[in-house]
Amino acid sequence: MDVPIILIVALIAGIISIGMALYFAKLVMKEDPGNERMVEVSGYIEAGAKRFISVQYKMLGIFVVGLSIALLFLPSPLKGSATYDRIFPDALNWEQMIAYLIGSVGSMFAGWLGMFVGVKANTRAAQGCTISTKKGFDVAFFGGAVMGLAVVGVALIGVSILYWVIPDPTIILGFSFGASSIALFMKCGGGIYTKTADVGADLVGKAEYNLPEDDPRNPATIADNVGDNVGDIAGMGSDLFDSYVASIVAAMMLAASFAVLGVIESPLVDVTLSDAGKAIFVVTPVVFCGVGLISSLIGIYLIKWKGSEEPGKALNTGTYFATLIYFGLSALITFFLTIGLENEEIGLLWRIWGVSAIGLLSGIVIGFTSDYFTRADRKPTRNMAYAAQEGHAVVILSGFSYGLISVVPPAIGIIIAITFAYLLAGVFGVALAAVGMLAIVGTIVSNDAYGPIVDNSRAIAEQGDLGEDIIRIADKLDSAGNTAKAITKGFAIGAANLTVLALLFSFAIEANEIEPGSLLPEDMNLLSPNVLIGAFIGVVIPALFSALLILAVQRNAAIMVKEIRRQFESNPKILSGEEAADFGKTIDIATKGALKELILPSIISIATPIIVGILFGVASLGAFLAGAILSGFVFAVMMSNAGGAWDNAKKWIEDGNLGGKGTEIHKASITGDTVGDPFKDTAGPSINTLLVVMSLTASIFLGFLLLFNGGAGLIRF
Amino acid sequence: MDVPIILIVALIAGIISIGMALYFAKLVMKEDPGNERMVEVSGYIEAGAKRFISVQYKMLGIFVVGLSIALLFLPSPLKGSATYDRIFPDALNWEQMIAYLIGSVGSMFAGWLGMFVGVKANTRAAQGCTISTKKGFDVAFFGGAVMGLAVVGVALIGVSILYWVIPDPTIILGFSFGASSIALFMKCGGGIYTKTADVGADLVGKAEYNLPEDDPRNPATIADNVGDNVGDIAGMGSDLFDSYVASIVAAMMLAASFAVLGVIESPLVDVTLSDAGKAIFVVTPVVFCGVGLISSLIGIYLIKWKGSEEPGKALNTGTYFATLIYFGLSALITFFLTIGLENEEIGLLWRIWGVSAIGLLSGIVIGFTSDYFTRADRKPTRNMAYAAQEGHAVVILSGFSYGLISVVPPAIGIIIAITFAYLLAGVFGVALAAVGMLAIVGTIVSNDAYGPIVDNSRAIAEQGDLGEDIIRIADKLDSAGNTAKAITKGFAIGAANLTVLALLFSFAIEANEIEPGSLLPEDMNLLSPNVLIGAFIGVVIPALFSALLILAVQRNAAIMVKEIRRQFESNPKILSGEEAADFGKTIDIATKGALKELILPSIISIATPIIVGILFGVASLGAFLAGAILSGFVFAVMMSNAGGAWDNAKKWIEDGNLGGKGTEIHKASITGDTVGDPFKDTAGPSINTLLVVMSLTASIFLGFLLLFNGGAGLIRF
Repeated sequence: MDVPIILIVALIAGIISIGMALYFAKLVMKEDPGNERMVEVSGYIEAGAKRFISVQYKMLGIFVVGLSIALLFLPSPLKGSATYDRIFPDALNWEQMIAYLIGSVGSMFAGWLGMFVGVKANTRAAQGCTISTKKGFDVAFFGGAVMGLAVVGVALIGVSILYWVIPDPTIILGFSFGASSIALFMKCGGGIYTKTADVGADLVGKAEYNLPEDDPRNPATIADNVGDNVGDIAGMGSDLFDSYVASIVAAMMLAASFAVLGVIESPLVDVTLSDAGKAIFVVTPVVFCGVGLISSLIGIYLIKWKGSEEPGKALNTGTYFATLIYFGLSALITFFLTIGLENEEIGLLWRIWGVSAIGLLSGIVIGFTSDYFTRADRKPTRNMAYAAQEGHAVVILSGFSYGLISVVPPAIGIIIAITFAYLLAGVFGVALAAVGMLAIVGTIVSNDAYGPIVDNSRAIAEQGDLGEDIIRIADKLDSAGNTAKAITKGFAIGAANLTVLALLFSFAIEANEIEPGSLLPEDMNLLSPNVLIGAFIGVVIPALFSALLILAVQRNAAIMVKEIRRQFESNPKILSGEEAADFGKTIDIATKGALKELILPSIISIATPIIVGILFGVASLGAFLAGAILSGFVFAVMMSNAGGAWDNAKKWIEDGNLGGKGTEIHKASITGDTVGDPFKDTAGPSINTLLVVMSLTASIFLGFLLLFNGGAGLIRF
Repeated sequence: MDVPIILIVALIAGIISIGMALYFAKLVMKEDPGNERMVEVSGYIEAGAKRFISVQYKMLGIFVVGLSIALLFLPSPLKGSATYDRIFPDALNWEQMIAYLIGSVGSMFAGWLGMFVGVKANTRAAQGCTISTKKGFDVAFFGGAVMGLAVVGVALIGVSILYWVIPDPTIILGFSFGASSIALFMKCGGGIYTKTADVGADLVGKAEYNLPEDDPRNPATIADNVGDNVGDIAGMGSDLFDSYVASIVAAMMLAASFAVLGVIESPLVDVTLSDAGKAIFVVTPVVFCGVGLISSLIGIYLIKWKGSEEPGKALNTGTYFATLIYFGLSALITFFLTIGLENEEIGLLWRIWGVSAIGLLSGIVIGFTSDYFTRADRKPTRNMAYAAQEGHAVVILSGFSYGLISVVPPAIGIIIAITFAYLLAGVFGVALAAVGMLAIVGTIVSNDAYGPIVDNSRAIAEQGDLGEDIIRIADKLDSAGNTAKAITKGFAIGAANLTVLALLFSFAIEANEIEPGSLLPEDMNLLSPNVLIGAFIGVVIPALFSALLILAVQRNAAIMVKEIRRQFESNPKILSGEEAADFGKTIDIATKGALKELILPSIISIATPIIVGILFGVASLGAFLAGAILSGFVFAVMMSNAGGAWDNAKKWIEDGNLGGKGTEIHKASITGDTVGDPFKDTAGPSINTLLVVMSLTASIFLGFLLLFNGGAGLIRF
């Protein structure tokens, strides 16, 4: 099989994906946006989201240009690559820079498209609920699918064109770095934004003035809804976009290195590569992703078809079917890929297929343990609700503890995936497990982006006075979104974890390609002081990063709280409903605060790996990444699950259990939920992006770091 | 210099220490125990403490006998030791078992003595306050010093006699394991006990019935005071005892290995050892500890002399002076030790002296950053108090974030200590830095044990109706105790961290002594899947362990809450003060619950290293330990500092700031304090012991683990 043809398949899959996204967008736009009030509210949300995005993108523009210039002058990571004749053979990294720019712009485009459709879909889905549950579901789900398909489409088109023009995966590293640095801003900024608004709205509106959720009198209501779009649609989309691309890059870079070496090592057997094999293994990750996209598309249609009265079940069924279809289709394409390969290569390719299936399966398992730990009808969340009977503090202790315990099952899942992946196909196997886990990312992101849309729909139904029955339907759609969200988060964490592990392996191999012997296995020995120190710093960073984000939300929410109180106090007509609150002001606070507060965490995530590399050397940097991956996993899972469980415990009490709304028990559960907000929607999910950005920074700056005592660092032990 | 003479010095120092402890105990006993009511209350506390200890020690007896038998049949870790002819040369580990028994009994004795005097000192210190602040301080401080001196004395006597009879440090590993396994039970059990009572007393007594702290009508008051003794005196004492012994053992084992190799490697120069050098370097850790004891004794007398009107200052001054005296005295003894050594050895010995000084200094720095992050007049705690204005949830978010941020300075402290220690004297340097950090443990434990005594005194003064003025004096003594406690905790965490790092190095060297080549540097390479998996499990364990302890407190406190409510409801005369509450019942709940709940965490801490070693091999086990050390550090510091800060933020509000007691702000700050209770007094400090126990388990079971594929483990990559 000729390589370009395979790439053409991936490219076509990508184009189809974008085409479908645009088609779905058109379907959504055609729907009825509802009554005047609904259009008005939706318009506010849209304006707020656009404002945030435009300010954010301007800031990103400056950052991207600055980093491009830095990349241009970095010692080229391509120098050591033997697979490719450079287009610009001088010292400057033009290719890398261009790839970086494409990655950044691609990520921004996908985020923008997803969000643009999201803010159109919310009011249309609310109006759809007046016709039937199914109608409302369809509109919201198609709206979400735009984001899912845009993510996959941009990624596949970008990777396949870049690799076609410049057949060196190191180039795609630049593309991936572009995607990640945008994701970092989108995720941190969006996360701070959404929780500033949410916490602010809850603390004053709900707690002090007893206003219900989404009450139009609450000045932060619109900002809260904007937050759902910027944090949960654009943020989560760019997060998974970034993991998705990074997993492809890590696998391709490893394959390219093996192609240079002419052999793929694995514990079972070392496979010598034929020329055909060299070409095939490099593009296998992209091909599997293409297959995954097709599976996702089928899954999306199944969800639409099934999504009648039980939207939550429909979303999960879609995920299951996409998984099964992926197993079958990828086996089929593996069979075609084996044509023309040698015997041992054929065995390896089949094992790689198996590894990608194991990766996907373990993603599902991780997602479902997240679901278990956050569902109101399961023991952990139920116990948390009971703990509310003993007051605020006990809810917190309970949630924190169950959050920590919930780290164990996904950790076992990841360990089993690593074990099998490595046993079957060595480090390449670990990379392919990550690719497999992310294969159906189209379905996953679609399900996830559905959540904030129906959340917004509910608010619009409330504000547009559609009546109790319609709000109940919107509520039902909303709660299905919450379940999907828990699963997506588990998936996102697991996938990011495997991806950065694969990036760690490719980092080590890359070091020896640029400067042979610069990173020997014994250099990464945990008994060396520099390795220990690197790992130590790595373990601390996710903790510090989370703390900074949470404090950012807290600081910003405090400003928001003051503003809401000021509006209520200065103009009593807001509370009586005679005059509209000043939504622009609260949106401004959320926007400016988010952008200001994301600077320090962003600097930390890019600067720390470089500093560790300069001071303690590249082996220390490798250990730094490993330490960050492991502790990042613990913090990300703990915060996501504790936050989700607190949220659902509160909802369960609000459903009338343990005395229901307004009781002391309910208040205690609100405390849990408020603590959980920045845990689950700001700090927890941002850690994924942090890990990917740090790993890519390490790989991109590797050539530069090798200048310091040949990679041994300034402090030599 | 002849080795036995040096050991005799350490032995004599140890005997003096025990002698002084008994002398101080006698001084305390001679004091006036106060009025009838005070004697009665103190009697309740004493009876409760004795009951807990007797039940606990019975359980420990069974555990110790069981583990002794297991140790007897383990493949001997001594087999590979070339330095010593075994007394019992057959396969059974008689020596190890006897050392283990001595370590266990020694730890139990030190804990018992410290607590026995503690429960006598509390009422006498309260009565002392009626004479003068100084009198009250002296009695309490002498009471605390008994624990401090007992710890050091038992450790030095045990180590020097054992090494004298059996000149192989591997033997002392057994002694250390005995001390640690007892410490694990004391710390976890005591921690669960104290917080069960404290949280229970607060939730019902303070929050529901508005009773003041230490109110005699509260049925859990006595249990709360008992908890201070079992958790904070016996628990913290056994924790530091265990780190102290482990640091000596790690250093001696490394020195013994270097003696066998004939060379001590360090980045500066590899020093070939003369016969005199071999003997001297092995005992240097013990000698430094002896010097530290003398410095501590002088420090203790300085504190007594200075401890007039400003008790807090006196405690800190004592610590500073003990540090300075240690620097001078250890330099002097280093000078004597160099007599008869070769030139290069002399240089190394001086560098080792420097390293021990750096260790101690960094301990002080870590202690004082803990102080900074937990003091009410500094920014973090002040911000937490302000956060209480925005409600319960924001206090929690703020404390959690600052707790995480507070990990950074001590991490930098440890990293600097490791860097210098390693640069100056290799891995031996790291071990000596730990020894140095723990050198003045006598002063540290004395200061720490003072805390719970004055805490009890305050309660007794309250219950004995000594009047507002006396209670205010007792309050002043109490708040000095809290500052000392924050510093001790920082110290304890830093010391445990360096100690387990040293144990990790000695673990690796030991493996190659037993089975040459069983743990090569490249085996510990972070890119090997088994090493990554080991590190992964290691990082998760402290999180899981903390969660289990917190849930244990929560479960147990819930039972306590029910019992307190039951007493108040079934007998209204308790609340009116006409009849005494049933203290026996609450003490029973705390005792039984604590002992039941510590079983699972204890099993995890001993079983996990063995399981990892069997499945993934000894290299994986090494990485497991490294992962646990690093994540354990993050969790221990975060929980201790967040807990301390919440506590002090609440106290600051209770002092009349931000509206003072009874306000909503005060209630929010109580939520912080209640969450912080199990953080800072149960889970956080137990992590130290967890790490030491896991490290020692790894070393003790090493011979056994090498039976599985020569240490490669059952799952071979």
